[in-house]
Amino acid sequence: MVQYGPELDTGFGALADPTRRGILERLGDGDASISDLAADFEMTLTGLKKHVAVLEEAQLVTTQKVGRVRHCRLGPRRLDEETAWIARHEQMLEARLDRLGDFLERTKGAST
Amino acid sequence: MVQYGPELDTGFGALADPTRRGILERLGDGDASISDLAADFEMTLTGLKKHVAVLEEAQLVTTQKVGRVRHCRLGPRRLDEETAWIARHEQMLEARLDRLGDFLERTKGAST
Repeated sequence: MVQYGPELDTGFGALADPTRRGILERLGDGDASISDLAADFEMTLTGLKKHVAVLEEAQLVTTQKVGRVRHCRLGPRRLDEETAWIARHEQMLEARLDRLGDFLERTKGAST
Repeated sequence: MVQYGPELDTGFGALADPTRRGILERLGDGDASISDLAADFEMTLTGLKKHVAVLEEAQLVTTQKVGRVRHCRLGPRRLDEETAWIARHEQMLEARLDRLGDFLERTKGAST
């Protein structure tokens, strides 16, 4: 059984929430402070900070405190492993469907 | 702000656990009963059933009870939306890095 590192857990986990995906999209347009993001997503600072902490743990966002303001920007992490995992799953699914198709074809051939 | 359906939440959420990814890989090799999977993953039936329920809700697995045995197989759901979301994110990240590169190049030009 292939074992994957915890990167996939934190990566997929970070993406499993609409607000967190929204924050990543928002930061794609430009850096923003925690307060900016809280206002954009109509959320309390506490709630927003929790989402940013999850994104930071997954290295999808980095934050820096300048004076009293914490600035957020997209982190260095790419999602190549996640993409590769999904691509392998899709290939596996295709292969299974092909085998099922072959089986049905053979069964049909046998019954006529 | 683009809004995404709950499919991405359940899709990414289902993939955020190593046992659930393992179950999908295992079912890629062939169908299996809940008991088979519990043995493979050295897990209690109760624990295994919870993971299968999450995968079933995400339509990544379908189950069928035949007699006293519940059989699991890969579900019909493809992960195209998840792939598309990640691809858009990567493009956005590239674009940001390009802009940063341009900025640094201009700054360098201005300072010489």
